[in-house]
Amino acid sequence: MAEMTAQPLIRRLCVIGVGLIGGSLARALREKGEVAEVVGCGRNQDNLRAAVELGVVDRYDTDPARAVADADMVVVAVPLGAIEPVVRAIVSHLAAEAVITDVGSAKGSVVADIERIYGRIPANFVPGHPIAGTEKSGVEASFATLFQKRRVILTPLAETAASAHQRVKRMWELTGAEVIDMGVRHHDAVLAATSHLPHMLAYTLVDTLARLDDRAEIFRYAAGGFRDFSRIASSDPKMWHDICVANREQLLEMIALFGADLERLAAAIRNDDRAAILNTFERAKRARDNLYLD
Amino acid sequence: MAEMTAQPLIRRLCVIGVGLIGGSLARALREKGEVAEVVGCGRNQDNLRAAVELGVVDRYDTDPARAVADADMVVVAVPLGAIEPVVRAIVSHLAAEAVITDVGSAKGSVVADIERIYGRIPANFVPGHPIAGTEKSGVEASFATLFQKRRVILTPLAETAASAHQRVKRMWELTGAEVIDMGVRHHDAVLAATSHLPHMLAYTLVDTLARLDDRAEIFRYAAGGFRDFSRIASSDPKMWHDICVANREQLLEMIALFGADLERLAAAIRNDDRAAILNTFERAKRARDNLYLD
Repeated sequence: MAEMTAQPLIRRLCVIGVGLIGGSLARALREKGEVAEVVGCGRNQDNLRAAVELGVVDRYDTDPARAVADADMVVVAVPLGAIEPVVRAIVSHLAAEAVITDVGSAKGSVVADIERIYGRIPANFVPGHPIAGTEKSGVEASFATLFQKRRVILTPLAETAASAHQRVKRMWELTGAEVIDMGVRHHDAVLAATSHLPHMLAYTLVDTLARLDDRAEIFRYAAGGFRDFSRIASSDPKMWHDICVANREQLLEMIALFGADLERLAAAIRNDDRAAILNTFERAKRARDNLYLD
Repeated sequence: MAEMTAQPLIRRLCVIGVGLIGGSLARALREKGEVAEVVGCGRNQDNLRAAVELGVVDRYDTDPARAVADADMVVVAVPLGAIEPVVRAIVSHLAAEAVITDVGSAKGSVVADIERIYGRIPANFVPGHPIAGTEKSGVEASFATLFQKRRVILTPLAETAASAHQRVKRMWELTGAEVIDMGVRHHDAVLAATSHLPHMLAYTLVDTLARLDDRAEIFRYAAGGFRDFSRIASSDPKMWHDICVANREQLLEMIALFGADLERLAAAIRNDDRAAILNTFERAKRARDNLYLD
């Protein structure tokens, strides 16, 4: 652990939802010596106790209103569906200088939640989304380097105070992430394509196979490619349920696009249109190879 | 490299198609000292020269008829669409004791090819399929341990000689693989589900995203899950084109099943049927977690 700097960025950090994301953020900031105290909050006492034992938080409180007392930074790292009740519970207990941010995988629904609570967009709320994670959940899965060389998208609004935006940006940069600003709707479209749709495909594929009569044998012969391909189907169902609800419109649009493309490929296979099949695969391979060198 | 045993299993192995699979098989058998001589064959001289330089084959011949001369084991490791012309070219040049096997990812089409060439199922042909591979191709990507702890499926027919079946089984066991017998149709159904369908989904997903207007930005925000999920879209397009053609019927059946399940999930999202969404994800996560511990 690094020496505490004379003036850490955050005096008291309150992390509501000390799971993979919240826990990893706290770990990274503590390692940098850029947070003087971390207070954890959540509903699962066992998880919070583990967070203390692992040194991720200094102490915890299961009551959000008490947990945020005197915190200058509040990170709401709960599933999307829990953001509204959590913010409702803390809103009248926040310190005057407190900055709030979240880590939700969709931003339109979070902004709508906040607006519903406040009746307007408050200046100290900065919607955020670290593009990082594994298929694991819980504080035990957290680690300080999770955000290194990953991207964090912030979607500040016209009403967002520049100082609040800067503090959240600086916080994420300290974890080793690259921080990018984006519009709310654009964020949700990009994530529907690159993250939400792939998760739908992985969940559906595993479920399709799991409901076949000879599923035991089917899975016995699943090869290496299947392991990688299906990994994201081990992600937290509740979290992904919430993402579907939160980003419904843009996700449905992407599923429809994909479904039409899959049907076009099926038609090419059915009609023995070999050029169309080969073209599709070659185009996809080129795009994938341009993207990664693995 | 191990000492040559007094009596290696194979005196002269001819590998037609010295790529990832053919090259890895030759490497594994050489390391075990269970093959006295390996002759490579293919159309790409650069690849064959590399195979000699890498020590994967002793020599090569680009003419299949000459390459199989006096070989007691012939492994046809070319894409499915090339199996028929290759076998046609070698059929009257095989040694009397030669056993032939292939490594195609679909078996019904291979058996039909063979029957068309011979007018019957020959006793010395053993259809095979090692469930192993990476998204890489070519002899440079080959390695001796590719088949260790992987499964190899053989689909011998009523006409197949027990001695030929045993020799091919023993050959694959020497690479560290577990060898399993299966019916031709059943093999193709299992592989359509666990391998062919996932590849269609990965290719289609990458292609869908690559054709979006903001594809450059889309791909910039693709997270870790996308990298794993899309890896198989880097697989060889020609090989997968051939698999689509060869296993058309069973693949189309699986695409239809998957498409219906995806549409059911989309309907649940559209209708805000939260229980249905959560059930699907929970069922899939359970199935995936039971399968792998990663």
